[in-house]
Amino acid sequence: MKLIDGNKIAADIIAELKADVALLPGRKPCLALIRVGDDPASVSYVKKKEKTAAEIGIISRVILPSVAITQTELFALIDQLNADPDVDGILVQSPLPQPIDELQVFRRIAPCKDVDGLGTMNLGKVAQDDDSGFISCTPAGIMELLARSGVDLKGRHVVVLGRSLLVGKPVALLVLQKKTGANGTVTVCHSQTANLPAITRQADVLIAAIGRAEFVTAAMVKPGAVVIDVGINRVPDAAKKTGYRLTGDVHFPTVAPLARLITPVPGGVGPMTVAMLMKNTLKAYRLTHRGD
Amino acid sequence: MKLIDGNKIAADIIAELKADVALLPGRKPCLALIRVGDDPASVSYVKKKEKTAAEIGIISRVILPSVAITQTELFALIDQLNADPDVDGILVQSPLPQPIDELQVFRRIAPCKDVDGLGTMNLGKVAQDDDSGFISCTPAGIMELLARSGVDLKGRHVVVLGRSLLVGKPVALLVLQKKTGANGTVTVCHSQTANLPAITRQADVLIAAIGRAEFVTAAMVKPGAVVIDVGINRVPDAAKKTGYRLTGDVHFPTVAPLARLITPVPGGVGPMTVAMLMKNTLKAYRLTHRGD
Repeated sequence: MKLIDGNKIAADIIAELKADVALLPGRKPCLALIRVGDDPASVSYVKKKEKTAAEIGIISRVILPSVAITQTELFALIDQLNADPDVDGILVQSPLPQPIDELQVFRRIAPCKDVDGLGTMNLGKVAQDDDSGFISCTPAGIMELLARSGVDLKGRHVVVLGRSLLVGKPVALLVLQKKTGANGTVTVCHSQTANLPAITRQADVLIAAIGRAEFVTAAMVKPGAVVIDVGINRVPDAAKKTGYRLTGDVHFPTVAPLARLITPVPGGVGPMTVAMLMKNTLKAYRLTHRGD
Repeated sequence: MKLIDGNKIAADIIAELKADVALLPGRKPCLALIRVGDDPASVSYVKKKEKTAAEIGIISRVILPSVAITQTELFALIDQLNADPDVDGILVQSPLPQPIDELQVFRRIAPCKDVDGLGTMNLGKVAQDDDSGFISCTPAGIMELLARSGVDLKGRHVVVLGRSLLVGKPVALLVLQKKTGANGTVTVCHSQTANLPAITRQADVLIAAIGRAEFVTAAMVKPGAVVIDVGINRVPDAAKKTGYRLTGDVHFPTVAPLARLITPVPGGVGPMTVAMLMKNTLKAYRLTHRGD
């Protein structure tokens, strides 16, 4: 068994991006981060994005509307950023307060600035094998982890646990693409799946993204499989001073000895997400500065 | 074994649509059909669409640009139809002559008039479980055939043979939706898949869409499976006066006795495609005439 070190791979990407950004003439890439309200997890995620941007040399513009903002007002803010030539990427941090419709908000971002890749157009482009858009950051991070760990999916059976819009569906579409490193056979399982262990045991590569702590046990994994754990779950733990520990969707102690490669939680997929956001921001910048 | 009679089901849908259209006040729904050049299959497909529209009471406006039309000129034509309030749906018949980029052409159609559902935005909406768009006609027809044959996919394993943009990927996304009748587990196989028969034999529902004549044999099918054959292949046959016969992707004589339900070719999925196009056209009309 060998660990896939997400911290190390993310740091490599960040270093590469920093070197790329240093070479850019004139204005540096700029990412607008919109955070509505004070959800503690959102505060910490946005802070992490700001910090990584600064490290690379990407300008971040943090906008903090009140939790009372209406959808119409949020649309107006997005429209303004869509039209602003000094802004390359726009990210609206999820979750948004009720009754704002996230799908409509993400769709409102101009596709060429949708660096979080959650808009309808960019998702459609993933299905179309069209590289001109943005792949959402978690699935993009998973593909990058696999590529940089030397895992070629061609002809391999990839089983995805979870059919979310954020991970399950886009990663399945990426696995199916006719690109080097992809071309995998893909199965998507979820809460309604019958005989789940019989299916997951067929996986050459198992991607767990269901948000259920330590759900994947040794009996569900084929020896020699590559296991990617996308879950980040808080489990009560009296021994920790926070009162909880973080675990993935995989029961690491029993699955790790079976796996050929496995991502830890934390330190696996998580760090990749921010790195891929920065990569998308640089791509957005380049799309509008092509002639420069 | 029981046949799924696509001709009968399509005729039912057409009769329902005819009754719906008869009740509409004022201008009837209008579908613009653009056919570039004289490809014989395209001529016949567009004729069939025109005929079915007339049967229902949908106006069709057939536009026949020369095969020498440039992409820029085709875009201008689409823009004009996008802006025309008397046109509800726009279909550009595939294939288009080189070097026109079909993906860009389909994307140019306003999403609210893209009744063929091949534009990026409408494909993205399918991935997002968003009903406000248009599902492309062949996958929509497959889901309708299954629903009207009493097949509930919930928890069943659906194996899709083929990862095309026209069938394989959108039908896989439809199977995964959290909708009544859907909620299936889905596997997508293709030319790179290893151990294909071992995977297809797991299918409760097998959807063959690879364009290889009689590729699916009895050894690849689990007894009692539902088999949907999307292929339409021409096989040389000296006994026919045309010199060929039509066959699907399934070897019907040996697979049919095993299957619980199976679609024939022709007369299975084929007739559904045109019916679903008409259904989408009526939906497009209703989207713009909501207040009427």
